[in-house]
Amino acid sequence: MIRKLFPFSIFIMAFNVKAMLPLPSKAEIPKDNLQSVEKINLGKTLYFDPRLSKNGTVSCNTCHNVMLGGDDQRSVSVGVEGQKGGRSAPTVWNSAFHTVQFWDGRAKSLEEQAVGPITNPIEMGMSDFDLVIKRLSQIPGYVLMFDNVFGKNGISKENIGKAIASFERTLISGNSEFDKYMHGNKKAISAQKIRGMKLVQEIGCTACHSGVNFNGENLKMGEGNFQKFPVVENDFIKKYNLSADLGRFNVTKNEDDKNMWRVPTWRNIAITAPYFHNGAVRTLDEAVRVMAKSQLDMNLKDDQVKDIVAFLESLTGTFPRINMPRLPESTSTTVLDLE
Amino acid sequence: MIRKLFPFSIFIMAFNVKAMLPLPSKAEIPKDNLQSVEKINLGKTLYFDPRLSKNGTVSCNTCHNVMLGGDDQRSVSVGVEGQKGGRSAPTVWNSAFHTVQFWDGRAKSLEEQAVGPITNPIEMGMSDFDLVIKRLSQIPGYVLMFDNVFGKNGISKENIGKAIASFERTLISGNSEFDKYMHGNKKAISAQKIRGMKLVQEIGCTACHSGVNFNGENLKMGEGNFQKFPVVENDFIKKYNLSADLGRFNVTKNEDDKNMWRVPTWRNIAITAPYFHNGAVRTLDEAVRVMAKSQLDMNLKDDQVKDIVAFLESLTGTFPRINMPRLPESTSTTVLDLE
Repeated sequence: MIRKLFPFSIFIMAFNVKAMLPLPSKAEIPKDNLQSVEKINLGKTLYFDPRLSKNGTVSCNTCHNVMLGGDDQRSVSVGVEGQKGGRSAPTVWNSAFHTVQFWDGRAKSLEEQAVGPITNPIEMGMSDFDLVIKRLSQIPGYVLMFDNVFGKNGISKENIGKAIASFERTLISGNSEFDKYMHGNKKAISAQKIRGMKLVQEIGCTACHSGVNFNGENLKMGEGNFQKFPVVENDFIKKYNLSADLGRFNVTKNEDDKNMWRVPTWRNIAITAPYFHNGAVRTLDEAVRVMAKSQLDMNLKDDQVKDIVAFLESLTGTFPRINMPRLPESTSTTVLDLE
Repeated sequence: MIRKLFPFSIFIMAFNVKAMLPLPSKAEIPKDNLQSVEKINLGKTLYFDPRLSKNGTVSCNTCHNVMLGGDDQRSVSVGVEGQKGGRSAPTVWNSAFHTVQFWDGRAKSLEEQAVGPITNPIEMGMSDFDLVIKRLSQIPGYVLMFDNVFGKNGISKENIGKAIASFERTLISGNSEFDKYMHGNKKAISAQKIRGMKLVQEIGCTACHSGVNFNGENLKMGEGNFQKFPVVENDFIKKYNLSADLGRFNVTKNEDDKNMWRVPTWRNIAITAPYFHNGAVRTLDEAVRVMAKSQLDMNLKDDQVKDIVAFLESLTGTFPRINMPRLPESTSTTVLDLE
C-alpha cells in the first residue's frame, strides 16, 4: 500500500516545490520596443555616458557596473556631488527577467526604470528631461544615432528609455554552474552545492525564490512578486536596521504594503555583496542566516549555511564580452556647465 | 640673384619652423617595463576598477575617460566624496608621447604618474598603498593576474604602476586627418585646415607645439618642455583666472618656475574642452584667442581663429576598439567598507 502511494507523494512534493529553472538565452522583447543592433548600440552608449548626469560624473554604469556583477559593491550608491542614495543598487545583469523594477517595484518596465535615475536629484541630478534632450542635441553623433533608430527628432525621454532598455535586455549572464547542471551536465556542480540546492527547497526559500531568475514563477511583465521582509521578529532586524525602510508602502501608501519588497534575484548573488535593500550585511553567509531567521524562523547550523552559500555561488553566470562604446563628442566645446 | 638665394631662404625657414610630425603607431617602451598581453590586460582591468578608490566610486577612467577624448569634459575633475580637484584632467590618449606627466610635469614617467591619484585624498582617496595592496589581495582574480605577470606576491605599488602604464601605452589615437595628410594623402584635409596649419607655423605656435604630440620636439623621457603661461599681460588673464596657479613652481619652489607648465598636446584638442590648466575656457576658438594674445601678443582676426580651429580639429584621432575588461570579483563579500 505504501509503495502504491509513493509515486503519488512524489507528485505532490514536486508540485509543491516551486521550480528553479535555467536562464533563457534571450529575454522577452516588448512589441512596442523591438530590438535592433543600432538601438542596442545607442542604448549601450547612453548607458556609459556620464554626460547624462548634471555634472558629468555619473553614468548608469557608475552604480550598475557591468564590468562587475552589475552593481557597485557598496551598501548604498553615490550620485552626483557625493550624495548617498537610500538603497543598495540592484544588479543590472538579468534585470530583463524581473517583471517590475527597483527594490519597491515602482517601475513596470525597464523602459520606465531606465529614465528614473537621470532626473533623480541624488542620483544623476539632471533638473529635467528638457535639459537632457538639449544636451544630447548638442552632440552631433547622438542626433545621428537617435534619428537613425527612431526617425527625425528622435531624441526624447521615451526613446532614451527604449534604447537603454534594449541594451539592458542583452545583459544576460546564463551558463552558470547551476544552468549547466539543469541542462544535463550533472558534474557541473559539487556535492556540497547539490546539498545546498536541496536545502533551499526543503526549508522553503524557493517558495519565493523560484523561476528562471529566482524571483518568482510565471510572472507577467508589470506584475511583481512582492513579499514582506522581515516577517519574524529577531535580533538581526535591529542590528542591520532592516525594517526602517517601509519599501513598497512608500509607493502605494497602502498599509498592507509596509515592508513589502520585490523578491530579489539570486543570480550573481555571490558577486553582488553587500546584501539587502540597505546593503547593511557584508557577507553572503550572514545574509543567509538573516533570511532563514527573518522569513522562516529558522536558526541554521554552520554546515547548512555553508551548503546554501556554496549553492548560491553556483548561480554566478558567464558574462558576455562587451565592446566599449565610443561616446560621440561635442566638437570644440563641452556640453557640461563650467563650475 | 634673388632666385639663386631663394632655395637657401627656404632651407632657413624650414630649419626655423619646428616640425609637426605624424603620430607613430607605437610608443617607446621602457626597458624596465616591457609589455605583454597579460600585463596590458591587467593594467586595463586596474584602470577601470573603482575599487582602487577609497569608497569604490572613482577609477582612473572616471576622470580620464577613454570612451571620450581621454578626459571628463569638466573644468576640474571630481574625486571621492564629491571633492573637486584643482586642475583639469589631461587626456590619457597619447600620454605615452609626453616625456613628463601631469600639468606641472612632476612625474617623470607614466609608471610614476599612474600611482599618484590613487592615494591623493581628493582624487581616489586611498589612505596608503598598504590598503590598496590589502584590498587587491582579497580578490582572487587579481592575485592570479599579478602573480602571472610579475611573479609570486606580485601585488605592489610599483607593479600597479607598471601595469597601468603598459595599458596606457596602447592608448594611441593616430590616423587623424593630419596624420593621413602627412603620410601623403593630400586630400585628407580641407583647404581651410591647410590655411590653419600654415598659420600656426607662421605666427609661432609651433615654436612650442611641435613634434609627434605637438608638445615639443626630440624630447627624452623624463625631460619636460616647460613654458611660461601666460607671458603677455592681457584681459583674458583676469577673466579666466589664468595666473593664480603657479604651476611648476609648486613642485620645485624655484622662482624661475612660476607659471611654468608642461606644453600640452594638441592631439584630440577639439574633443577635450574645456581648456587650460583650470578648464576655465569653454570653447576652442576662445582658447586660440587666449593663447595668441597671452603668448604671442597677437589679436587674431575671426577668420584666422576659424582656420586655426579647423586645423586643430584635424588632429582628432581614430580610436582603437577596446574590449571591456571583466573586473575580478570578491566572492560572497565586498572589499569595500560599509558606510
